Amino acid sequence: MITSPHNEQLKTIRKLHDRRWRERLDLFAAEGEDLLDAAAAAGWEPEVLLRAGEDVERDLLDEVSTLGSGTRVIGVYRRRWSAPGGRLSTYLHAVDDPGNVGTILRAAHGLADGPVLLGPGCADPYSPKAVRAGMGSLFARPPGRAEPASLEGTLVALDPRAETALAGVDPGPGPVVVCLGAEREGLPGELLERASIRARIPLRDDGPESLNVAMAATVALYELANRMAADA
Amino acid sequence: MITSPHNEQLKTIRKLHDRRWRERLDLFAAEGEDLLDAAAAAGWEPEVLLRAGEDVERDLLDEVSTLGSGTRVIGVYRRRWSAPGGRLSTYLHAVDDPGNVGTILRAAHGLADGPVLLGPGCADPYSPKAVRAGMGSLFARPPGRAEPASLEGTLVALDPRAETALAGVDPGPGPVVVCLGAEREGLPGELLERASIRARIPLRDDGPESLNVAMAATVALYELANRMAADA
Repeated sequence: MITSPHNEQLKTIRKLHDRRWRERLDLFAAEGEDLLDAAAAAGWEPEVLLRAGEDVERDLLDEVSTLGSGTRVIGVYRRRWSAPGGRLSTYLHAVDDPGNVGTILRAAHGLADGPVLLGPGCADPYSPKAVRAGMGSLFARPPGRAEPASLEGTLVALDPRAETALAGVDPGPGPVVVCLGAEREGLPGELLERASIRARIPLRDDGPESLNVAMAATVALYELANRMAADA
Repeated sequence: MITSPHNEQLKTIRKLHDRRWRERLDLFAAEGEDLLDAAAAAGWEPEVLLRAGEDVERDLLDEVSTLGSGTRVIGVYRRRWSAPGGRLSTYLHAVDDPGNVGTILRAAHGLADGPVLLGPGCADPYSPKAVRAGMGSLFARPPGRAEPASLEGTLVALDPRAETALAGVDPGPGPVVVCLGAEREGLPGELLERASIRARIPLRDDGPESLNVAMAATVALYELANRMAADA
């Protein structure tokens, strides 16, 4: 039983709050029984497993938790990255909110067969907030990494200024990558030019200019997955 | 220029961090120029308007801000509630995450003509986190309040265990209320029984059990709005 705050495992967990340390150590932490169950179900073995009252004193675990309420268990895992692939995948460009990245991992896990590919400027999917928002989908379907120039297949760029409504898109028979950018900046011009299809989610004239990027991604994956299922 | 932290307006803003005070005073606060611009565009007059360096010392405003980074401007407004109505509206039951409530306000503002009606157990749409997540849609389209028994029209209950897929739903010609419950508990049995239609968002067999409630609401409003536009 760990009884000292200077324990090396606790120190590691504390470091993993920080993106640079996650990258340097190639590790990340997940908190709570639901997430650890999801990890086990997906076949992930923790490098470190600390249960309050069993492996470590409860107060010491709470101190290294990123949850205000503390936690009963923390697991440390090695990061994994999916290769691009699947019939329907997602590319995010400069989506810098970790809650949105985690939410999109969960939506893509439910609606598409391919990974979420993270481009430059995206939030770290292994940050505590993204891991929580992903609700275990991170383990079942790890994110990938990509540069815009490396994307292959039919690129469908979500763009509020596009003329075509999403429901009018014919994705065709090949692999499709739905591309979304940050809410204000959108996708870089280079990617908009390379995209085979530019489409928008129709919004009411008296509505907001755009949806939150996680909502836009979810709607796009829902529509395209339905459309591809109908064609199959 | 306010130079004392004991100023009554600053005290009021501090109180408005707390739900009981928002209810007692029937007021709420919004922070930042984007939100205050959205309020002005929708014709809301602030009861109190404090600009850093003009009406109040910058540090004092930062102290009552709910943003970690501080803020340049805070407006205090009187709460408003929309009456039920519209061709397509939303009912939320015990959706207790303020970020989700705000996100759904924004999605409904973009996709539907009716309000978001909040039932028992929902997060306060006028909490700082919900106001931020709503991105100004709160002002353009204030939320409503409802008891499940008072809902009128065609009730479409989102239920992961329903047999009908959302894309197979015929909403009919009358007003439609999309009903969503909390992620784990779902909708109360009484409401599921009263619903004219129970539908699910089809998810992959190897996917998560459900989507985040804000994602589910957005997909449902998108699908039903498209369907109703096609019928019109």
